[in-house]
Amino acid sequence: MPAYTLNADLAATAAPPVPLARAWAATFPGKATHAEARELPLLNLAQGVPGHLPSEALLARMQQEAGREPAAAAGYGGVFGAPELRKALAADVRQRYGGDCAEDDVAITAGANLAAAVAFQAVARRGDAVVLPTPWYFNHEMTLSSLGVHAVPLPTEAPSYLPSPAALRKLLASRRSDSAPAIRALALVTPNNPTGAIYPPELLREFASLCREESIALILDETYRDFLLDDAKEPARPHGLFEDADWRDTLMHIHSYSKAYAIPGHRLGALIASPELLAAEGEFGPVAKALDNLQICPPRTDTQRAVAWAMQAPEHVSWRLNKARELAERRTLFYELMRPLEELGWRVESAGAYYAYVAHPWSGTPSEVVAEQLAARVGVVVLPGAFFSPRGSTEDAAQRLRVSIANVDEELLRTLPQRLQLLKGVHLQ
Amino acid sequence: MPAYTLNADLAATAAPPVPLARAWAATFPGKATHAEARELPLLNLAQGVPGHLPSEALLARMQQEAGREPAAAAGYGGVFGAPELRKALAADVRQRYGGDCAEDDVAITAGANLAAAVAFQAVARRGDAVVLPTPWYFNHEMTLSSLGVHAVPLPTEAPSYLPSPAALRKLLASRRSDSAPAIRALALVTPNNPTGAIYPPELLREFASLCREESIALILDETYRDFLLDDAKEPARPHGLFEDADWRDTLMHIHSYSKAYAIPGHRLGALIASPELLAAEGEFGPVAKALDNLQICPPRTDTQRAVAWAMQAPEHVSWRLNKARELAERRTLFYELMRPLEELGWRVESAGAYYAYVAHPWSGTPSEVVAEQLAARVGVVVLPGAFFSPRGSTEDAAQRLRVSIANVDEELLRTLPQRLQLLKGVHLQ
Repeated sequence: MPAYTLNADLAATAAPPVPLARAWAATFPGKATHAEARELPLLNLAQGVPGHLPSEALLARMQQEAGREPAAAAGYGGVFGAPELRKALAADVRQRYGGDCAEDDVAITAGANLAAAVAFQAVARRGDAVVLPTPWYFNHEMTLSSLGVHAVPLPTEAPSYLPSPAALRKLLASRRSDSAPAIRALALVTPNNPTGAIYPPELLREFASLCREESIALILDETYRDFLLDDAKEPARPHGLFEDADWRDTLMHIHSYSKAYAIPGHRLGALIASPELLAAEGEFGPVAKALDNLQICPPRTDTQRAVAWAMQAPEHVSWRLNKARELAERRTLFYELMRPLEELGWRVESAGAYYAYVAHPWSGTPSEVVAEQLAARVGVVVLPGAFFSPRGSTEDAAQRLRVSIANVDEELLRTLPQRLQLLKGVHLQ
Repeated sequence: MPAYTLNADLAATAAPPVPLARAWAATFPGKATHAEARELPLLNLAQGVPGHLPSEALLARMQQEAGREPAAAAGYGGVFGAPELRKALAADVRQRYGGDCAEDDVAITAGANLAAAVAFQAVARRGDAVVLPTPWYFNHEMTLSSLGVHAVPLPTEAPSYLPSPAALRKLLASRRSDSAPAIRALALVTPNNPTGAIYPPELLREFASLCREESIALILDETYRDFLLDDAKEPARPHGLFEDADWRDTLMHIHSYSKAYAIPGHRLGALIASPELLAAEGEFGPVAKALDNLQICPPRTDTQRAVAWAMQAPEHVSWRLNKARELAERRTLFYELMRPLEELGWRVESAGAYYAYVAHPWSGTPSEVVAEQLAARVGVVVLPGAFFSPRGSTEDAAQRLRVSIANVDEELLRTLPQRLQLLKGVHLQ
């Protein structure tokens, strides 16, 4: 037992949900309560992680890049990452969103969570506040909590789970009158984790205007944007904010390579923001300082170069699009599989990109208990809604589960209904 | 210009020195003031970075590991890293230091800076304080500053640059009486950056006892410990603290793979600390929470497995030892090269492992100006002493420069005296 004092903010920070779900998964089939369930493989729908491997082409390219200059790649890189990748991402933003984005706006980070952490740190310190729609992405809330920054909930509801600009305006006004902590930013995740909700471009524009008006930052986490398709199953434009000439005054955009490129272990994400936050003409902005402390440089310059290639190579662009289409089909299948379970009290509230947000039948039983029991009894691993909401305010969240439909193939997913059927009438506690 | 408010703690945090030195280096030979200097290559003695490549054997092993399961390696790993590497590091500590260390004590991090950041965060939050001997390692001070944690200087002096337990005791007592921020930890770097000072085992033991008595953590950054040789040029034991049965109550140890394995770009370091800080029996400690936010998992599981091999493989153990011996010879050469310059006012104050701490002849000229001018005029890139000391208290630091002697080969290092000779009698400002 340490003889020194621990940081109370970290003590008060929630436990990481994904390792916890991993621990629950380990109880199956040992604690399975139904013989039929014991025969089935584990159905892990908890972590938002690609169920497929990276493309053969990207793996080959990474090998090639690693072999090209293995010794050089072992050295330090720039604090904002490989120039090739910064350029490729800026070009991708121009092409996908329209508008203006340049290498100087891009900081490559060791994963999108680190991008979010430095975005939060750039604007908020202990005692400040950041608004998060609830249900929220747990690592956002945990990062804020670990820094002693208040996460102020902006509730959203079924069926749309869209946050309301009017509600934000009211919230900001109500806090101006009392001596509440200063709100420094609004952080949105679209497509959303956990609800899968996709925020319409007009809604994002409204939030951007409101943030600008209120002089707070809009932190937009678009980790899942490659899975955004239009009705013709072609890539959809997520929003037009980059077309505003002054987007850098308000917007900080978070990008991830973990899901769309299926390389979470390589730790690559990015923060796109005003060069003033990064490094302009020899001056070092807050993001440069934070990243110099936390990453020095993002890992694996060979991966960065390979990914810079993959962002533009037609064969890999179509690989990503195909994965997005497969996922869209799996989402449709998921809805179909769940529909007959409505009579048992199951209901898909919302779904998009990687996630579905689902109401379970055990009203009154906390979602953590339901999630733990689902894993142990029938080998279905999901995350409890409570992990995405403020402690205490569990009324709605207690009734819901986050299902990550990207992890598993169609065949395995088809075993879901029979497992849930096994729990018909079972009392969980 | 962002329309939102920036974090004042990060605004007050110093600029990253290494990118700044890179900018100075870029002014050579364009701004060289001596024709002879213009003919010479750049002599970069600024960043603490290996001047040699990783071993062929390690490069081959990394390629092999990357090829073995490239797809699997692309997935998420555990928050504390690959089990192979955690085990290998624990075994290495038992073998090198004696005493007890197990896999559960080890968290692999995306670089040693991140290990330091989470160690600081585990015990201190905004308004708390951590003691750093001065001159300090700038990223330690920057990390604390970015978190709003006070870095309390514990001054050290030539020729030993060893911190004094009596001075620390006095400092702690003086702060108890007033309402100063609570001191949560003492962070030491040995072999030291920037002075190269090597803290004797007995001194470290005294500090450990004092920290335990005062209920504060002892954070021991031993990034350069593989360069620690005894008189027979065999590996020296850095200290015996791991032999204390209760070391986990006080000690947090930081390890780096960047220097000893010459793979800084791969971002691998480690924090060794009480399992209570990591994750004990399903409970998540503060370090687990912080790392889940900042790294999720350390990058490149293939590198981790290759390094786990390299820690123990005899051919690679001897490669590391040879590099340490070469560096010891270069240190001797550096002393020899600098001796004739004493008549010009140059003096090597202290040197060990990677670094030498050197007094320059321009009294009254700030060390930043001297460093910038050395780069521009004669292509010698070093870091100013001021970067390692509190702002304002520059009397001593203004007179000193940190020289990283690991970066360059012997032949290039031999060009140092003639360059410094060129500046004889030159007035720098």
